[in-house]
Amino acid sequence: METNDIKKPIFENEMLYILKEDSSIPWVKIFPKKECKELSDCDKSIQDILINTMIVAQKAMIDFYNPTKINIAMFGNYLPKLHIHVMARFKNDSHYPEPMWGRKQRESSLNLPSFNDFIQILQEKLK
Amino acid sequence: METNDIKKPIFENEMLYILKEDSSIPWVKIFPKKECKELSDCDKSIQDILINTMIVAQKAMIDFYNPTKINIAMFGNYLPKLHIHVMARFKNDSHYPEPMWGRKQRESSLNLPSFNDFIQILQEKLK
Repeated sequence: METNDIKKPIFENEMLYILKEDSSIPWVKIFPKKECKELSDCDKSIQDILINTMIVAQKAMIDFYNPTKINIAMFGNYLPKLHIHVMARFKNDSHYPEPMWGRKQRESSLNLPSFNDFIQILQEKLK
Repeated sequence: METNDIKKPIFENEMLYILKEDSSIPWVKIFPKKECKELSDCDKSIQDILINTMIVAQKAMIDFYNPTKINIAMFGNYLPKLHIHVMARFKNDSHYPEPMWGRKQRESSLNLPSFNDFIQILQEKLK
């Protein structure tokens, strides 16, 4: 059964937690526990851990989903609390090649492997 | 006089170069010279230099422009060649709080200090 509780972290440690974004593509968001507005406001040690976690999530998505491209974003315009979006994009997804915030390109129903299996792999890699 | 040659790097060293994006907001793009598709494909040393340069550009924008928020993105869907977008966003810019790839919110004419002065400061910080 796929988890639909997008408020419950799919991973957490002392420094950060990761949420699933409710989307048709594989999409996770990495938040530092010590809130900051911009990445440059965080202590260097937190910056390094966030970026390293982003790279691990990106590699795990590439290995598991073989996506056309990974998309990364740090916006936080609506809620100015730093978080890093990591998205697996596919040439037949709803918005490709536009960003997920751009104009929808098509109706799309991706046939992807289980996100819960991906979570387990990601958790293992982040241990 | 403001530079309008957006193909000429505003900064470069042995590892990377920075281009200006032609936009109504302050927006730069950081490219590694050794091309890669994803950040996770780059050598760790290149990753570190790219992220460090992104942080320096972000801090320089915050100091110089006092923006509402910094936005960062790595997409590369149209041209799968890694580059990092660093954007200074303002609450009265054309798209805020939507990403610059989202729906335009308003006509906007920002009264910002000279981008050429910003370039000089950025160059100095990246030396």
